[in-house]
Amino acid sequence: MVQIILNGCNGKMGKVVSNLAQNSDTLSIVAGIDRNSSGTYYPVFSSIEECNVSADVILDFSRPDALDSLIKYAKSNNLGVILCTTGYSDNQIKTINDISKEIPVFRSANMSIGVNVVNNILKNISALLYKNFDIEVIEKHHNQKVDSPSGTALLLADTIKASLPEEVSYVNGRNGIRKRKHNEIGIHSIRGGSIVGEHEIIFAGQGETIEIKHTALSRDVFAVGALKACEFMYKKEKGLYSMDDVISVKN
Amino acid sequence: MVQIILNGCNGKMGKVVSNLAQNSDTLSIVAGIDRNSSGTYYPVFSSIEECNVSADVILDFSRPDALDSLIKYAKSNNLGVILCTTGYSDNQIKTINDISKEIPVFRSANMSIGVNVVNNILKNISALLYKNFDIEVIEKHHNQKVDSPSGTALLLADTIKASLPEEVSYVNGRNGIRKRKHNEIGIHSIRGGSIVGEHEIIFAGQGETIEIKHTALSRDVFAVGALKACEFMYKKEKGLYSMDDVISVKN
Amino acid sequence: MVQIILNGCNGKMGKVVSNLAQNSDTLSIVAGIDRNSSGTYYPVFSSIEECNVSADVILDFSRPDALDSLIKYAKSNNLGVILCTTGYSDNQIKTINDISKEIPVFRSANMSIGVNVVNNILKNISALLYKNFDIEVIEKHHNQKVDSPSGTALLLADTIKASLPEEVSYVNGRNGIRKRKHNEIGIHSIRGGSIVGEHEIIFAGQGETIEIKHTALSRDVFAVGALKACEFMYKKEKGLYSMDDVISVKN
Amino acid sequence: MVQIILNGCNGKMGKVVSNLAQNSDTLSIVAGIDRNSSGTYYPVFSSIEECNVSADVILDFSRPDALDSLIKYAKSNNLGVILCTTGYSDNQIKTINDISKEIPVFRSANMSIGVNVVNNILKNISALLYKNFDIEVIEKHHNQKVDSPSGTALLLADTIKASLPEEVSYVNGRNGIRKRKHNEIGIHSIRGGSIVGEHEIIFAGQGETIEIKHTALSRDVFAVGALKACEFMYKKEKGLYSMDDVISVKN
Repeated sequence: MVQIILNGCNGKMGKVVSNLAQNSDTLSIVAGIDRNSSGTYYPVFSSIEECNVSADVILDFSRPDALDSLIKYAKSNNLGVILCTTGYSDNQIKTINDISKEIPVFRSANMSIGVNVVNNILKNISALLYKNFDIEVIEKHHNQKVDSPSGTALLLADTIKASLPEEVSYVNGRNGIRKRKHNEIGIHSIRGGSIVGEHEIIFAGQGETIEIKHTALSRDVFAVGALKACEFMYKKEKGLYSMDDVISVKN
Repeated sequence: MVQIILNGCNGKMGKVVSNLAQNSDTLSIVAGIDRNSSGTYYPVFSSIEECNVSADVILDFSRPDALDSLIKYAKSNNLGVILCTTGYSDNQIKTINDISKEIPVFRSANMSIGVNVVNNILKNISALLYKNFDIEVIEKHHNQKVDSPSGTALLLADTIKASLPEEVSYVNGRNGIRKRKHNEIGIHSIRGGSIVGEHEIIFAGQGETIEIKHTALSRDVFAVGALKACEFMYKKEKGLYSMDDVISVKN
Repeated sequence: MVQIILNGCNGKMGKVVSNLAQNSDTLSIVAGIDRNSSGTYYPVFSSIEECNVSADVILDFSRPDALDSLIKYAKSNNLGVILCTTGYSDNQIKTINDISKEIPVFRSANMSIGVNVVNNILKNISALLYKNFDIEVIEKHHNQKVDSPSGTALLLADTIKASLPEEVSYVNGRNGIRKRKHNEIGIHSIRGGSIVGEHEIIFAGQGETIEIKHTALSRDVFAVGALKACEFMYKKEKGLYSMDDVISVKN
Repeated sequence: MVQIILNGCNGKMGKVVSNLAQNSDTLSIVAGIDRNSSGTYYPVFSSIEECNVSADVILDFSRPDALDSLIKYAKSNNLGVILCTTGYSDNQIKTINDISKEIPVFRSANMSIGVNVVNNILKNISALLYKNFDIEVIEKHHNQKVDSPSGTALLLADTIKASLPEEVSYVNGRNGIRKRKHNEIGIHSIRGGSIVGEHEIIFAGQGETIEIKHTALSRDVFAVGALKACEFMYKKEKGLYSMDDVISVKN
């Protein structure tokens, strides 16, 4: 039974994680950290310094500025840290890399298992297919999303780009008279309604296409990934880990 | 048995039409017009003036500048004309409209039955859904296509636009920080490989989406539509007809 | 402002409806009926007989056996009734039809706007396309769903069947050596993970396909439909109404 | 320049290969073998024994019973053999394996590059995803195809099955009341119109799905694969090769 301290337990993702963990028989949340302590099934502390519950790992869904106190607590209590917060500064990322030489640290750009599997597929097949296939990316999100393309679409496109034998450029939509160049990747951002998140990569060749598509049905998917990361980090040695390590373990 | 004179019988589409018609028991090609007369199973004349075969309709897959001689021949021989040529000038379109007061004339922006059915669906549902659904269009074509968006994508988007209660604008791709406005229609042009032609309209609402998609598998689809138009035009009165009239006839 | 009494306000769907209605400026829930009264922002009564709040309509997401008391209350208080409960007996359906001659009653097999729009599209195009297109239905649901095909898939297939010029039969999967007959409709039930609900109808013709697809992203979609039905039923005359009436009103 | 003898040059696939090869600057057809010698741009011999043109490889799109003469000719002329014919008996397959100890031989169940890439992806990810994802296969083909599921669907399903940690069974369609078992793979055969061939594998998990889809747009795809195999086999050592070897070469 992996025992988890959940930092940010009453935020949007914290609640989803709490619900999911409640039915698990392989892990349990033994304490939460949040200003708001209502409605949880475990003790909640308003700051991590006050937490006196023994545990295996800290799962963090809070804000970048919580990083220093988290690390300090993890180090002195000998806990692994799973960082699911986004938006760290370059300095903070350096701090994370440094501390991973002393304690086990987990961080991933996207916590969904599926997106990471798709990313790995792209690493394996893009160079192979490039000579005979054109590559395009379509992503779809709800109408409240302000940034285009999505961070995940760029993550996937960057993975493809890094594996190709020649320099490619991104094209964000097409309008007018111009023939496609082989060394461009079209990235198309569809926005509408309440679509949670879809990412599709198209390899279009002579007489055939291969399409690889990931669909997020709900925020659950990030909570599931986070809990899998907690299981993975149980009793791990110091070091820096990511979703890639989780999914390369045969279940 | 509808008897057809095929203008442009040795062009790319002329050949597809000839192959399809050869197996039909409701229509037959009785003569062709083309400079090149090789490989046909019917007599071929190098210009329409020379054609002395009696028929019911002229099916035209040639060039806009053939219009005047076609019309003259059709009028003096009392034939219906099915125009599948694209790229007519405004003057030529006026000529077509005028002559339809004297003889039966058929013209459509897209000869596929499916695209016209989709276009009709959009006419019926767009206004209804608009209040609660965002509308986006995705079209996919091969990597040799030079124009974006496709003519058919614009045809479908214009149909939607014309039926909506407020002014909407088209957005051809997204890049950067900007929230979607409800009164925009995203039109996304994917290019790659040898994709024949796909057009998909997405209505994305609160908790649900409706997608309507047309896929052309081969050029056959335009020949099938043209031959259906020939059957439809058999013994029609003078007037201007289009695919809309064909598909509104219950089979 | 349409004033709603919500019967079954603390059930799964009742809660979704309550959340959605809280942000509305065109309707409001003025009372709820449920044994459990916790966590609502409006007064809750344990039975409808006790409810003394004036309203315009009763929205019902409860159980079939609540029907009689609902009808009695609606009749004596002059309220419209929106029935979103499923599983009524034939006798109860007769009761519903009878009472609609005295008060305004709303009932639909599926409360989603999108499914009803798709159903209407199928009514319009199936006969038209049948001669030249084969028809197949694919539906996808989560791995806990016990019935195949889904009720909505059958609703859509029955709509198609009723509109065709010849008798067709349903085929639930294929295995072995047998050529497709034109007058069969394949219905395919995919089950897996936590898929909320997808229904896709494929019209496959010579050289082209038309696909019409509905995707439910969450249970919200049925609550949205129910609230639209409440707005529609505001001050309606006696009679029997359904989603078809709602969606045929231009927004 | 790889020089090819094309066995079965006037069959359906032979013609497609001839057209594609005509525009190549890396390979050329230097002779064909067929009873019918009309319409080719290279010399045609009615049997392979008569062929006196020097070449690098023999590409075979003919019939299983041509195998013995092919092998004899290849051996005495020191040529590689690319076998794209299907339907060999067990004895013939043994012959193929045996002869590959003396000369270079190429044989694959499916000549499309894309299908083989998809098959390799499935080898890599199925075991990894199995614990948390349900697996379903959808394949679509034209209405003249008599066998269900398609050979390629079974090839892909067998690849998945062989990589999983527990025994799974195939389910060809669902009808009635029964909950999905985790260790079943649904295989769904859609038939309609002139669909060339689509194969889609769905991994459906908690809150997310991954879909991997291959679409054949035309028979070209098998000719493209065959010509890639010819290039791959140029000056190869004796041995048995397949599409897997071709696609594992980085372009």
